[in-house]
Amino acid sequence: MNDIASVSSESRSLLERIRVGEVLARDCPSREILNHVCSRWGVLVLVVLLDGMHRFSELRRKIGGVSEKMLSQTLQSLEQDGFIDRRALPVVPPHVEYTLTPMGREVALRIDGLTTWIEQNLPRILAARENRTADTLSDS
Amino acid sequence: MNDIASVSSESRSLLERIRVGEVLARDCPSREILNHVCSRWGVLVLVVLLDGMHRFSELRRKIGGVSEKMLSQTLQSLEQDGFIDRRALPVVPPHVEYTLTPMGREVALRIDGLTTWIEQNLPRILAARENRTADTLSDS
Repeated sequence: MNDIASVSSESRSLLERIRVGEVLARDCPSREILNHVCSRWGVLVLVVLLDGMHRFSELRRKIGGVSEKMLSQTLQSLEQDGFIDRRALPVVPPHVEYTLTPMGREVALRIDGLTTWIEQNLPRILAARENRTADTLSDS
Repeated sequence: MNDIASVSSESRSLLERIRVGEVLARDCPSREILNHVCSRWGVLVLVVLLDGMHRFSELRRKIGGVSEKMLSQTLQSLEQDGFIDRRALPVVPPHVEYTLTPMGREVALRIDGLTTWIEQNLPRILAARENRTADTLSDS
Protein backbone atom coordinates (compact mmCIF):
# COMPACT_ATOMS: atom_id res chain seq x y z
CA MET A 1 0.00 0.00 0.00
CA ASN A 2 1.31 3.45 -0.88
CA ASP A 3 1.16 6.32 1.53
CA ILE A 4 -1.37 9.10 1.00
CA ALA A 5 1.26 11.60 -0.09
CA SER A 6 2.61 9.47 -2.93
CA VAL A 7 -0.82 8.27 -4.06
CA SER A 8 -2.07 11.83 -4.33
CA SER A 9 1.13 13.04 -6.00
CA GLU A 10 0.76 10.41 -8.67
CA SER A 11 -2.90 11.12 -9.34
CA ARG A 12 -2.53 14.89 -9.47
CA SER A 13 -1.20 17.05 -12.28
CA LEU A 14 2.18 18.71 -11.84
CA LEU A 15 0.49 22.11 -11.69
CA GLU A 16 -1.80 21.02 -8.89
CA ARG A 17 1.07 19.55 -6.93
CA ILE A 18 2.77 22.92 -6.99
CA ARG A 19 -0.40 24.78 -6.11
CA VAL A 20 -1.31 22.97 -2.89
CA GLY A 21 0.66 21.64 0.07
CA GLU A 22 0.49 18.16 1.63
CA VAL A 23 1.04 18.17 5.36
CA LEU A 24 1.44 14.39 5.40
CA ALA A 25 4.46 14.56 3.10
CA ARG A 26 7.68 14.71 5.07
CA ASP A 27 9.36 17.45 3.02
CA CYS A 28 6.38 19.64 2.14
CA PRO A 29 6.94 23.22 3.35
CA SER A 30 3.33 23.25 4.61
CA ARG A 31 4.51 21.14 7.51
CA GLU A 32 6.95 23.78 8.72
CA ILE A 33 4.16 26.40 8.60
CA LEU A 34 1.88 24.03 10.52
CA ASN A 35 4.56 23.60 13.18
CA HIS A 36 4.95 27.38 13.62
CA VAL A 37 1.20 27.93 13.84
CA CYS A 38 0.65 24.96 16.17
CA SER A 39 3.67 25.55 18.36
CA ARG A 40 3.11 25.80 22.12
CA TRP A 41 3.26 29.62 22.02
CA GLY A 42 2.31 30.24 18.37
CA VAL A 43 -1.26 29.08 19.00
CA LEU A 44 -1.65 31.46 21.95
CA VAL A 45 -0.03 34.46 20.22
CA LEU A 46 -2.43 34.10 17.28
CA VAL A 47 -5.46 33.83 19.58
CA VAL A 48 -4.47 36.93 21.58
CA LEU A 49 -3.76 39.01 18.45
CA LEU A 50 -7.30 38.30 17.18
CA ASP A 51 -8.32 40.96 19.73
CA GLY A 52 -6.21 43.59 17.92
CA MET A 53 -2.77 45.20 18.11
CA HIS A 54 -0.56 44.36 21.10
CA ARG A 55 2.81 45.51 22.33
CA PHE A 56 5.42 42.89 23.23
CA SER A 57 4.96 43.47 26.96
CA GLU A 58 1.16 43.10 26.66
CA LEU A 59 1.52 39.79 24.85
CA ARG A 60 3.88 38.57 27.54
CA ARG A 61 1.43 39.52 30.28
CA LYS A 62 -1.56 37.88 28.61
CA ILE A 63 0.14 34.59 27.72
CA GLY A 64 0.76 32.94 31.07
CA GLY A 65 4.17 31.31 31.39
CA VAL A 66 5.88 32.46 28.19
CA SER A 67 9.49 33.62 28.49
CA GLU A 68 10.82 36.70 26.72
CA LYS A 69 13.05 34.54 24.54
CA MET A 70 10.33 32.11 23.46
CA LEU A 71 7.89 34.93 22.73
CA SER A 72 10.50 36.68 20.54
CA GLN A 73 11.25 33.50 18.59
CA THR A 74 7.56 32.74 18.14
CA LEU A 75 6.76 36.25 16.90
CA GLN A 76 9.72 36.13 14.53
CA SER A 77 8.69 32.87 12.86
CA LEU A 78 5.06 33.99 12.52
CA GLU A 79 6.29 37.27 11.04
CA GLN A 80 8.46 35.41 8.52
CA ASP A 81 5.47 33.31 7.45
CA GLY A 82 3.54 36.54 6.80
CA PHE A 83 0.99 36.09 9.61
CA ILE A 84 2.13 38.98 11.79
CA ASP A 85 3.17 42.59 11.13
CA ARG A 86 5.83 44.05 13.41
CA ARG A 87 6.05 47.82 13.69
CA ALA A 88 8.90 49.39 15.66
CA LEU A 89 8.29 53.04 16.58
CA PRO A 90 11.42 55.23 16.67
CA VAL A 91 11.07 56.21 20.33
CA VAL A 92 13.01 55.72 23.55
CA PRO A 93 12.34 53.34 25.28
CA PRO A 94 11.66 51.09 22.23
CA HIS A 95 7.99 50.55 21.41
CA VAL A 96 7.13 47.61 19.17
CA GLU A 97 3.60 46.79 18.02
CA TYR A 98 2.33 43.50 16.66
CA THR A 99 -0.82 42.96 14.58
CA LEU A 100 -2.19 40.10 12.48
CA THR A 101 -1.92 40.46 8.70
CA PRO A 102 -5.13 39.62 6.74
CA MET A 103 -3.66 36.15 6.12
CA GLY A 104 -2.74 35.85 9.81
CA ARG A 105 -6.32 36.64 10.71
CA GLU A 106 -7.58 33.80 8.53
CA VAL A 107 -5.29 31.26 10.18
CA ALA A 108 -5.93 32.69 13.67
CA LEU A 109 -9.69 32.27 13.26
CA ARG A 110 -9.15 28.56 12.63
CA ILE A 111 -6.88 28.26 15.66
CA ASP A 112 -9.45 30.11 17.72
CA GLY A 113 -12.11 27.59 16.68
CA LEU A 114 -9.89 24.84 18.06
CA THR A 115 -8.94 26.53 21.35
CA THR A 116 -12.54 27.59 22.00
CA TRP A 117 -13.68 24.01 21.43
CA ILE A 118 -11.08 22.73 23.92
CA GLU A 119 -11.99 25.37 26.52
CA GLN A 120 -15.70 24.66 26.22
CA ASN A 121 -15.28 20.87 26.24
CA LEU A 122 -12.69 20.71 29.01
CA PRO A 123 -15.06 19.19 31.60
CA ARG A 124 -16.04 16.45 29.09
CA ILE A 125 -12.39 15.74 28.28
CA LEU A 126 -11.39 15.58 31.95
CA ALA A 127 -14.34 13.25 32.66
CA ALA A 128 -13.32 10.95 29.78
CA ARG A 129 -9.79 10.89 31.16
CA GLU A 130 -10.95 9.92 34.64
CA ASN A 131 -13.13 7.12 33.26
CA ARG A 132 -10.21 5.74 31.33
CA THR A 133 -7.95 5.80 34.37
CA ALA A 134 -10.69 3.99 36.35
CA ASP A 135 -11.05 1.38 33.57
CA THR A 136 -7.31 0.81 33.47
CA LEU A 137 -7.21 0.30 37.24
CA SER A 138 -10.13 -2.14 37.22
CA ASP A 139 -8.55 -4.08 34.30
CA SER A 140 -5.33 -4.67 36.20
CA MET B 1 -3.03 46.14 33.27
CA ASN B 2 -4.20 42.69 34.22
CA ASP B 3 -3.76 39.68 31.98
CA ILE B 4 -6.74 38.27 30.07
CA ALA B 5 -6.94 35.20 32.27
CA SER B 6 -7.29 37.12 35.49
CA VAL B 7 -9.59 39.77 34.00
CA SER B 8 -11.94 37.09 32.74
CA SER B 9 -11.66 35.11 35.98
CA GLU B 10 -12.72 38.16 37.92
CA SER B 11 -15.67 38.93 35.68
CA ARG B 12 -16.95 35.35 35.58
CA SER B 13 -18.90 33.48 38.21
CA LEU B 14 -17.19 30.70 40.13
CA LEU B 15 -19.42 28.15 38.42
CA GLU B 16 -18.41 29.36 34.99
CA ARG B 17 -14.75 29.30 35.88
CA ILE B 18 -15.03 25.63 36.72
CA ARG B 19 -17.05 24.84 33.64
CA VAL B 20 -14.71 26.20 30.99
CA GLY B 21 -10.97 26.14 30.45
CA GLU B 22 -8.67 29.09 29.75
CA VAL B 23 -5.78 28.26 27.47
CA LEU B 24 -4.05 31.55 28.32
CA ALA B 25 -3.79 30.60 31.99
CA ARG B 26 -0.50 28.91 32.76
CA ASP B 27 -1.90 26.10 34.90
CA CYS B 28 -5.21 25.40 33.17
CA PRO B 29 -5.44 21.73 32.11
CA SER B 30 -6.83 22.90 28.75
CA ARG B 31 -3.31 23.89 27.83
CA GLU B 32 -2.00 20.34 28.18
CA ILE B 33 -4.83 19.07 25.96
CA LEU B 34 -4.04 21.80 23.42
CA ASN B 35 -0.39 20.71 23.39
CA HIS B 36 -1.32 17.07 22.74
CA VAL B 37 -3.72 17.96 19.94
CA CYS B 38 -1.34 20.50 18.38
CA SER B 39 1.82 18.44 18.77
CA ARG B 40 3.91 17.84 15.64
CA TRP B 41 2.46 14.33 15.20
CA GLY B 42 -0.84 14.72 17.06
CA VAL B 43 -2.20 17.04 14.39
CA LEU B 44 -1.37 14.57 11.63
CA VAL B 45 -2.68 11.49 13.47
CA LEU B 46 -6.04 13.21 14.00
CA VAL B 47 -6.27 14.26 10.34
CA VAL B 48 -5.50 10.74 9.07
CA LEU B 49 -7.97 9.09 11.47
CA LEU B 50 -10.78 11.29 10.11
CA ASP B 51 -10.71 8.86 7.15
CA GLY B 52 -11.63 5.97 9.47
CA MET B 53 -9.97 3.13 11.39
CA HIS B 54 -6.24 2.58 10.88
CA ARG B 55 -3.74 0.03 12.08
CA PHE B 56 -0.49 1.24 13.63
CA SER B 57 1.51 0.30 10.55
CA GLU B 58 -0.92 2.15 8.26
CA LEU B 59 -0.64 5.31 10.34
CA ARG B 60 3.13 5.07 10.20
CA ARG B 61 3.10 4.72 6.43
CA LYS B 62 0.73 7.63 5.85
CA ILE B 63 2.47 10.09 8.19
CA GLY B 64 5.76 10.80 6.46
CA GLY B 65 8.75 10.92 8.80
CA VAL B 66 7.18 9.73 12.07
CA SER B 67 9.18 7.25 14.14
CA GLU B 68 7.62 4.21 15.80
CA LYS B 69 8.38 5.66 19.23
CA MET B 70 6.89 9.09 18.54
CA LEU B 71 3.79 7.59 16.96
CA SER B 72 3.25 5.35 20.01
CA GLN B 73 3.63 8.25 22.43
CA THR B 74 1.29 10.45 20.39
CA LEU B 75 -1.39 7.76 20.17
CA GLN B 76 -1.11 7.11 23.88
CA SER B 77 -1.62 10.74 24.91
CA LEU B 78 -4.55 11.18 22.52
CA GLU B 79 -6.05 7.96 23.89
CA GLN B 80 -5.68 9.23 27.47
CA ASP B 81 -7.47 12.46 26.55
CA GLY B 82 -10.37 10.39 25.19
CA PHE B 83 -9.87 11.32 21.52
CA ILE B 84 -8.79 7.89 20.25
CA ASP B 85 -10.00 4.33 20.83
CA ARG B 86 -7.35 1.61 20.79
CA ARG B 87 -8.49 -1.94 20.12
CA ALA B 88 -5.98 -4.79 20.41
CA LEU B 89 -7.15 -8.01 18.75
CA PRO B 90 -5.97 -11.22 20.44
CA VAL B 91 -4.09 -12.58 17.42
CA VAL B 92 -0.49 -13.40 16.49
CA PRO B 93 1.16 -11.25 15.19
CA PRO B 94 -0.44 -8.47 17.27
CA HIS B 95 -3.09 -6.42 15.46
CA VAL B 96 -4.01 -3.05 16.95
CA GLU B 97 -6.67 -0.78 15.51
CA TYR B 98 -7.12 2.95 16.16
CA THR B 99 -10.29 4.98 15.62
CA LEU B 100 -11.48 8.44 16.65
CA THR B 101 -14.00 8.63 19.48
CA PRO B 102 -17.01 10.94 18.84
CA MET B 103 -15.17 13.63 20.84
CA GLY B 104 -11.98 12.95 18.86
CA ARG B 105 -13.91 13.47 15.66
CA GLU B 106 -15.06 16.88 16.83
CA VAL B 107 -11.55 18.04 17.62
CA ALA B 108 -10.13 16.43 14.45
CA LEU B 109 -12.59 18.33 12.25
CA ARG B 110 -11.24 21.59 13.68
CA ILE B 111 -7.65 20.50 13.10
CA ASP B 112 -8.57 19.46 9.56
CA GLY B 113 -9.97 22.96 8.92
CA LEU B 114 -6.58 24.38 9.88
CA THR B 115 -4.41 21.94 7.89
CA THR B 116 -6.62 22.27 4.81
CA TRP B 117 -6.34 26.05 5.02
CA ILE B 118 -2.54 25.81 5.21
CA GLU B 119 -2.37 23.33 2.31
CA GLN B 120 -4.59 25.49 0.12
CA ASN B 121 -2.86 28.76 1.00
CA LEU B 122 0.70 27.46 0.83
CA PRO B 123 1.55 29.33 -2.40
CA ARG B 124 0.30 32.59 -0.85
CA ILE B 125 2.30 31.96 2.35
CA LEU B 126 5.48 31.14 0.42
CA ALA B 127 5.02 34.26 -1.74
CA ALA B 128 4.59 36.43 1.40
CA ARG B 129 7.75 34.90 2.81
CA GLU B 130 9.76 35.68 -0.32
CA ASN B 131 8.54 39.28 -0.36
CA ARG B 132 9.57 39.74 3.24
CA THR B 133 13.03 38.31 2.57
CA ALA B 134 13.38 40.67 -0.44
CA ASP B 135 12.26 43.65 1.70
CA THR B 136 14.76 42.77 4.40
CA LEU B 137 17.57 42.57 1.84
CA SER B 138 16.67 45.90 0.24
CA ASP B 139 16.43 47.54 3.70
CA SER B 140 19.99 46.60 4.58
